[in-house]
Amino acid sequence: MRAVDLIAKKRDGAALSRDEIRWLIASYANGTIPDYQMSAWAMAVVWRGMDDRETADLTMAMAESGDMLDLHDLVPLTVDKHSTGGVGDKTTLLLAPMIAAVGLPMAKMSGRGLGFSGGTVDKLESIPGLRTNLSAEEFRHALSTVGLVIAAQSGDLAPADKKLYALRDVTATVESIPLIAASVMSKKLAAGADCIILDVKYGSGAFMHTPEAARTLAQTMVAIGKHAGRRVAATISSMQQPLGFAIGNALEVREAIAALRGHGPDDLVELCLTLGTQLVRLTGLRDNDAAARSLLQEALTSGAAWQRFVQMIAHQGGDLRFIEEPELLPTAPVQLNLMAPQSGYVAAIDGQALGTVCNQLGGGRQRKDDRIDSRVGLVLYAKVGDAVNNDMPLVTIHAASIPDAERVIPQLRAAYQIASSPVAVPPLIEEIVR
Amino acid sequence: MRAVDLIAKKRDGAALSRDEIRWLIASYANGTIPDYQMSAWAMAVVWRGMDDRETADLTMAMAESGDMLDLHDLVPLTVDKHSTGGVGDKTTLLLAPMIAAVGLPMAKMSGRGLGFSGGTVDKLESIPGLRTNLSAEEFRHALSTVGLVIAAQSGDLAPADKKLYALRDVTATVESIPLIAASVMSKKLAAGADCIILDVKYGSGAFMHTPEAARTLAQTMVAIGKHAGRRVAATISSMQQPLGFAIGNALEVREAIAALRGHGPDDLVELCLTLGTQLVRLTGLRDNDAAARSLLQEALTSGAAWQRFVQMIAHQGGDLRFIEEPELLPTAPVQLNLMAPQSGYVAAIDGQALGTVCNQLGGGRQRKDDRIDSRVGLVLYAKVGDAVNNDMPLVTIHAASIPDAERVIPQLRAAYQIASSPVAVPPLIEEIVR
Repeated sequence: MRAVDLIAKKRDGAALSRDEIRWLIASYANGTIPDYQMSAWAMAVVWRGMDDRETADLTMAMAESGDMLDLHDLVPLTVDKHSTGGVGDKTTLLLAPMIAAVGLPMAKMSGRGLGFSGGTVDKLESIPGLRTNLSAEEFRHALSTVGLVIAAQSGDLAPADKKLYALRDVTATVESIPLIAASVMSKKLAAGADCIILDVKYGSGAFMHTPEAARTLAQTMVAIGKHAGRRVAATISSMQQPLGFAIGNALEVREAIAALRGHGPDDLVELCLTLGTQLVRLTGLRDNDAAARSLLQEALTSGAAWQRFVQMIAHQGGDLRFIEEPELLPTAPVQLNLMAPQSGYVAAIDGQALGTVCNQLGGGRQRKDDRIDSRVGLVLYAKVGDAVNNDMPLVTIHAASIPDAERVIPQLRAAYQIASSPVAVPPLIEEIVR
Repeated sequence: MRAVDLIAKKRDGAALSRDEIRWLIASYANGTIPDYQMSAWAMAVVWRGMDDRETADLTMAMAESGDMLDLHDLVPLTVDKHSTGGVGDKTTLLLAPMIAAVGLPMAKMSGRGLGFSGGTVDKLESIPGLRTNLSAEEFRHALSTVGLVIAAQSGDLAPADKKLYALRDVTATVESIPLIAASVMSKKLAAGADCIILDVKYGSGAFMHTPEAARTLAQTMVAIGKHAGRRVAATISSMQQPLGFAIGNALEVREAIAALRGHGPDDLVELCLTLGTQLVRLTGLRDNDAAARSLLQEALTSGAAWQRFVQMIAHQGGDLRFIEEPELLPTAPVQLNLMAPQSGYVAAIDGQALGTVCNQLGGGRQRKDDRIDSRVGLVLYAKVGDAVNNDMPLVTIHAASIPDAERVIPQLRAAYQIASSPVAVPPLIEEIVR
């Protein structure tokens, strides 16, 4: 086989065979095929697409390029959750303990934030003492003891995906649904979960800008999972505005703790119940939405989910004082209110702009090795549809210094649209794909 | 500027500005932009194309990446000719002396053969003693003394094109009319001619398989030339069968010598008169086809073209005995006739197959540094439309050994189609593009 012939085949719109795809990925991973051939192939895929079978083959080839986790010696079945990333998205912090509390083992490898969207691992690390860099042994021990573990990705999961993603990032070949789907799913499949719920977000604060694009991506990922013999479902949820009210690492942990204690923002709780319901049904623990949902609701209101969260934090070395009294969590020295520019109704909030502001305040990364300030971020007072008066704050800026806070005001103002007449609230959940 | 943004722009179907193209090519040539970004951009160009302005800007950027020849201190005006390459194409050997004989200075840099099509320089080098690797000083001296020089490409002409072409070759991004046109024209513009005639061939023995594809390429190249302020025209000529009867380096020199002495095959002479007519008109030496053609015909029949050829060979060190008595030229030890398989009419000859056979006999290169055997090749007895009997040879195989000759027989047989009823002869010249 020659790489140039496979590039030409895709360029001409044909589908590559399973053997061709496996050879291509294996040869790229071991360095036989150079970057310049792989990037030309990736651009041909952006152009011509890949069918479901090709996409599934690519995903498995990338998953099998490294370690394939298998936790079945510890637990009969594991569950996992993935979000395509959004602003203010602390879903994992709430959902994972809820799921563990109903008796489903949750062994989650999570990412760090990059660009405008945050990462669960960064959020957790704002809790003093807590460790997310767990060894394989620690990870397995946490799963069998607590039934719940959230760790930074470790080991050598889907190295071919890592190499290809880095290449796509600098060759304008990210924007391809099959390539995005294969990248996400290769890591999920390698991480070994039997049941996977995918939260595919659309809107200004998400990678997919329209529900249609999100639907295509969701369908593609669900199809890949099924090809690989896993149970997979997806929700298509709105990121037309940030989720909840808090954006920023420690601020989001506080909001998640409040939600675990029964005081969560409605949209966050609703999304977790929806995702959890699908996950419970995938495992077969309950066979209909209503029963699955009430099981999860009970785990939340009984305090079982909170107890599971506390056990996880303790097991991973976190200082429990900081979650029992979350006001002790790292707090920004400057808190500056941005007032509503006029009275009216919030018509739109640009989530990506808010994520970028949080990033500029020091709460996120531009580059992989940037350090982050867990204290900074934003707390919103009004969401889309809410009435605002020009004597009330729209948002509080949590910053390391007054100049830092003042610098982001123009961008923050531009992120809000205030209408004079009432505004319809967009639905949070667009669709479930199974 | 960032390469990734320019790739994305082309991926999304937009045209790059002149500054963007110049930056891209300059940065690629100096190594700032890596191959993996350039190949992704090239695939985006294969997908999205380039408009005439972009193509002209790319051509100039590549031309200006190296030396730009200027011969105006020696002669007021120079002419050049380029063929997109074919099988049995010894046009330059006949046309260049004809053009020089009518008083137009011809300073031609020529290529070596690669793949199934031959190169003028390889053909000339079958004449003992003849040198084509001329220094810049020798090249200029030959032009001012003889008014005619054919040399191997030297100096640093369009190095960006050389680098990009090598990359395209291994990334399945050759097949793009704007990229092909820019590649050809960047070298022609750098070589400095004022008037350029392009022979764009189509058919089984050419890179372009249909007249339509050849026309698009011709129009694109003529447009580039005009953008650059040069006088350019193109013929679209048939390579549905080899040109003339001889294929192979020394065999083609013999055929060209015969043509210069007035015994040329009709198609070769006709093509040279057509190309020459356009070139004479581009220079303004004559203002209509009939007058231009009769000038060239006279140069041929009077022996002036032949004399100019002799002067060129002598000036470049060739041993004149071998052209005065061309039977002295290197001759293959084995000459084997392939008989017509049946009586009838030659319906088709696969030029590419014949070129490949010549290559396998040792007359061409698979790789750039292969040595070639100037003695070997094929001499045809019948062209498309000719009647054949099953007791006459179709072709003589000139080979280094009997096994070499026997090995190519099946391929040669397969290259011919014999029909039982008369066959129309395809026109040699499809169209003139100016």
